[in-house]
Amino acid sequence: MILETIEKENDIKNVDPQDLNLLAEEIRDFLIHKISVTGGHLGSNLGAVELTMALHLSLNLPKDKIVWDVGHQSYTHKLLTGRRAGFEHLRKYGGMSGFPKRKESECDCFDTGHSSTSVSAGLGLVKARDLRGEDSTIVSVIGDGSLTGGMAYEALNNAARIKSNYIIVLNDNNMSISENVGGMSKYLNNIRTADKYLDIKEGVYNSLMDRKLDPLVERIRRAKSSVKQLVIPGMFFEDMGITYLGPVDGHNINALLKVFREAKRCKSAVIVHVITQKGKGFLPAEKHPARFHGAEPFDVETGLPLKPKTKSNYTDVFSTVMCKLGDRDPDIVAITAAMPDGTGLKRFRNLYPDRFFDVGIAEEHAVTFAAGLAAGGMKPVVAIYSSFLQRAYDQILHDVCIQNLPVVFAIDRAGLVGSDGETHQGIFDLSYLSSIPNMHIMAPKNKWELSDMLKFAIKFGGPIALRYPRGEAYDELKEFRDPIILGKAEWLVKDGQVALLAVGSMVKTAFHVWNALVEKGYGCSIINARFVKPIDTDIIDEAVKDHMLIVTMEENVASGGFGEKVRDYLGSVKSDVKLLNITIPDEYVEHGNVDILRKEVGIDAKTITDKILRGLE
Amino acid sequence: MILETIEKENDIKNVDPQDLNLLAEEIRDFLIHKISVTGGHLGSNLGAVELTMALHLSLNLPKDKIVWDVGHQSYTHKLLTGRRAGFEHLRKYGGMSGFPKRKESECDCFDTGHSSTSVSAGLGLVKARDLRGEDSTIVSVIGDGSLTGGMAYEALNNAARIKSNYIIVLNDNNMSISENVGGMSKYLNNIRTADKYLDIKEGVYNSLMDRKLDPLVERIRRAKSSVKQLVIPGMFFEDMGITYLGPVDGHNINALLKVFREAKRCKSAVIVHVITQKGKGFLPAEKHPARFHGAEPFDVETGLPLKPKTKSNYTDVFSTVMCKLGDRDPDIVAITAAMPDGTGLKRFRNLYPDRFFDVGIAEEHAVTFAAGLAAGGMKPVVAIYSSFLQRAYDQILHDVCIQNLPVVFAIDRAGLVGSDGETHQGIFDLSYLSSIPNMHIMAPKNKWELSDMLKFAIKFGGPIALRYPRGEAYDELKEFRDPIILGKAEWLVKDGQVALLAVGSMVKTAFHVWNALVEKGYGCSIINARFVKPIDTDIIDEAVKDHMLIVTMEENVASGGFGEKVRDYLGSVKSDVKLLNITIPDEYVEHGNVDILRKEVGIDAKTITDKILRGLE
Repeated sequence: MILETIEKENDIKNVDPQDLNLLAEEIRDFLIHKISVTGGHLGSNLGAVELTMALHLSLNLPKDKIVWDVGHQSYTHKLLTGRRAGFEHLRKYGGMSGFPKRKESECDCFDTGHSSTSVSAGLGLVKARDLRGEDSTIVSVIGDGSLTGGMAYEALNNAARIKSNYIIVLNDNNMSISENVGGMSKYLNNIRTADKYLDIKEGVYNSLMDRKLDPLVERIRRAKSSVKQLVIPGMFFEDMGITYLGPVDGHNINALLKVFREAKRCKSAVIVHVITQKGKGFLPAEKHPARFHGAEPFDVETGLPLKPKTKSNYTDVFSTVMCKLGDRDPDIVAITAAMPDGTGLKRFRNLYPDRFFDVGIAEEHAVTFAAGLAAGGMKPVVAIYSSFLQRAYDQILHDVCIQNLPVVFAIDRAGLVGSDGETHQGIFDLSYLSSIPNMHIMAPKNKWELSDMLKFAIKFGGPIALRYPRGEAYDELKEFRDPIILGKAEWLVKDGQVALLAVGSMVKTAFHVWNALVEKGYGCSIINARFVKPIDTDIIDEAVKDHMLIVTMEENVASGGFGEKVRDYLGSVKSDVKLLNITIPDEYVEHGNVDILRKEVGIDAKTITDKILRGLE
Repeated sequence: MILETIEKENDIKNVDPQDLNLLAEEIRDFLIHKISVTGGHLGSNLGAVELTMALHLSLNLPKDKIVWDVGHQSYTHKLLTGRRAGFEHLRKYGGMSGFPKRKESECDCFDTGHSSTSVSAGLGLVKARDLRGEDSTIVSVIGDGSLTGGMAYEALNNAARIKSNYIIVLNDNNMSISENVGGMSKYLNNIRTADKYLDIKEGVYNSLMDRKLDPLVERIRRAKSSVKQLVIPGMFFEDMGITYLGPVDGHNINALLKVFREAKRCKSAVIVHVITQKGKGFLPAEKHPARFHGAEPFDVETGLPLKPKTKSNYTDVFSTVMCKLGDRDPDIVAITAAMPDGTGLKRFRNLYPDRFFDVGIAEEHAVTFAAGLAAGGMKPVVAIYSSFLQRAYDQILHDVCIQNLPVVFAIDRAGLVGSDGETHQGIFDLSYLSSIPNMHIMAPKNKWELSDMLKFAIKFGGPIALRYPRGEAYDELKEFRDPIILGKAEWLVKDGQVALLAVGSMVKTAFHVWNALVEKGYGCSIINARFVKPIDTDIIDEAVKDHMLIVTMEENVASGGFGEKVRDYLGSVKSDVKLLNITIPDEYVEHGNVDILRKEVGIDAKTITDKILRGLE
């Protein structure tokens, strides 16, 4: 195994050039087998094997720096920088992250996770290098999917101005998480399908330059840069001021080495347009790129998941209800930011293609576009993961809520998400949404309530969010199905001196706590909060009368969360009831199994029960 | 006066076409005289007079819809839709807003204020129109400055896909708020300076098409769309799938009418590239476009401000201190998003051009770029207004704070800003910043403390923000200048049973309250909070011992603000001290004089004093 000879960064330079393709094969084999066990981002990593190898051969890490956009394609980079053993515990609690992490290796120069940040960060490193008089090479690797995000464009707009070397590798697999969308994608496709750069350069360009020019061509020459437009793909980048090299076959190491040599000579920002195939070398991933974007453990022979899904998750429930409601009401439209599969809107798309919009990895546009749809009389439902919706904070506040427009936010992956780690945990949405005027926030206790809340939200007529967690939908407590009323919570159990006031996913945990307390001989009431904003002050008043301890429970950080609002209310009415707020501490939460993480941050039933018992003593 | 014959929308269509230029002159005259009295956005409005007239002549409002990007250029639109009288009280409390407002007129179809939202909103209106089978014309008017914002590009990327009419007017004055920056600006400039569209079209294009093609041109034709690239400016837009028309002289009404007729026939998104001059027709504004972007009342003859500034404001103090610190420490770099004048960084730019970065209206990029600079060893200071920094919420959380990078946020215009109104009030930053882990937040009581805090922040070594208000810097209390210590507040007065715990700008108000209470025979302590995060629990403990009422005071909404954090702390230590939180209510605050607004929202000294007296009874 050549792979075993690579113990640290730059070791790859000792590999016989003739063996590099063999090494690429070994890396693919390694990744497929490891990810089939641990799960992880497969397709993007298989697509970037030769690209990563060529970068490591061309650069001198850690002095030179690579910023990986999103970062899920950094597995080969981790393999080539001494982290082979880490794949045993990839994305496990305490194990190696699935994303670049500065604290994991000196060769990871910038943490990523959300899309489209790499050019901004890379440009910052370039300017720092130049100001400090250093001579390292800085490379950002960005996918064509990430190019649909506006901040990548903001950064390109600025990169166009620099007068020193900065390499932007455009890793173009013509795929976002699902299919790619939009005008830029079309533009890149024009380039991909055109004659190759070198071919054209040696053909038309030379002809034009060498021959005696007739008056027509003379006129062409006079028109500023028209000749360049004729012969160089990527003219838009060139026109902005960014040198364009490519397209290059991203699975041909020699071609990549050659183009990187060229790129390093540029005294400007230079885009190296590399064409890769997502899932390259693993047939099931080549055929089903969306399924293997983030894969659960699978069978290497068949590509099928090892644990077939049995219970439905919240995403499925959302998906089903959206399809039903869409049938009844032609004003309902659905918007996703590159996540038709992840959000469950794929089925809505198939049924109502005219009323479905995948806007690309463009959360900001998604939200203001929804505001426009609402202003035009439609009933938009925007489905975006909790941590990605952070990017549209201003659009929610400024474009939806000032105008009080009826936009429904379906916030999936709210709460701890597990193996993707700190960049993906959905633990801030209650805080960032609840300080926005006119916003309303709900969280369902189980799958039926998700359905009821979605119906309520679409009828509601103002800005409203419902947040629900990743994974299996809770399918108990079917008997509790009182109609959803704005700002009203729900009594589930009335008993004893402790009242648990639980938000969404924490209702299930509340029942575990109730069990444990009953076993210890204590009674315990349970209230399902339903609304985080506005909070139900009536039910809190009731609870205060009959209980000595109120326990709020939420899967959100403490600051700005539900518990803080309840404490604020109790303070404002000068209540002297005891209050215990169960929240995620005000810290980022790393990757790992969700059950382990819940214990770690103290929102599991046992930790809560212990705290309550201490409070009762 | 022709202008007086225009009483409502579409009245302009009754004006004799020969009188339109006269009307344009009258409008300019009206705007210059009105804005010279009230203040307001002058330059952008003078530049858009003919453009707006041509749109109103081409469209049928309110059935047809115009979305104004940012919206500060909508004055002529307001004039032409029956709001002439409103200019008497432009931007005054209870008067007409300086931005489009749905509640103000049926002809305002979408509220704007922040940059780069108009294409997203317009596209939403287009999709709503198509789905509802309506046949209105939708127009978004976006400046070239706003095109530096990423969400405009996200929207263009999506607009490229539509198959029905949507007109995007690119109002290109080659200016952002200050000079325009970046690659897109360069690209547009190439178009502006190239031969005109029609000329080229009738020249080269016809030659190419009509003549017998020689082998070279034959080859050109084969290469996809190369011929088009030769002859059409705006090829990038065309390549994305957006029809491009222009460039057109934006002060020639007939040319505009002609191009809008053409644009309305397109069955796709169409960009109409209109060249205008900011400040057109008023020499001082043509010469000093940045100064007249948002103007204070001025003398019409000279263009000079009526009230010359006497006292320095916080922006000046920030500006001076940045220059001093920049001299001492070559690692300090400064970043602004199109606001070198507004943030006071212009002087830093002039002194240290290599260490100053104006990234365009691109707050997201600004913050992640700063994170990259910090990761590369520099000490970045990002100066952005409070309400605009909202757009970089995710970048602060995801790119700066997860990695705990030393980025300083200098947040100007924090608190009530006055006449720009609800989209610009900086009343959410304490909420959205304080729930972000690793973030630290300060607010200075006076100009010396701003200086001390800025020095502290740059030395601090982690993410830290200082927020200060618009306008005059408080220059009393110079005697209180103890060193800034992380998380430590400051005793200013120790007396009586009430303790005022005031944040930043509210310290001045606290002294007014103190005066009023002393007059009524009560004593009163004053604490300057200095830090909003972390809060100084030690000083709160001390205050609780000696006082019966603690009054927090902040210029931020209640939800997620400082008062809520203090209440949370007091609750957690089971204190039974009385607490009164003075905050802005959880609502948007409209435009108007800041002093009036403060009374309106209840954070003025008199309202606070009355509340305290009631609490003492």
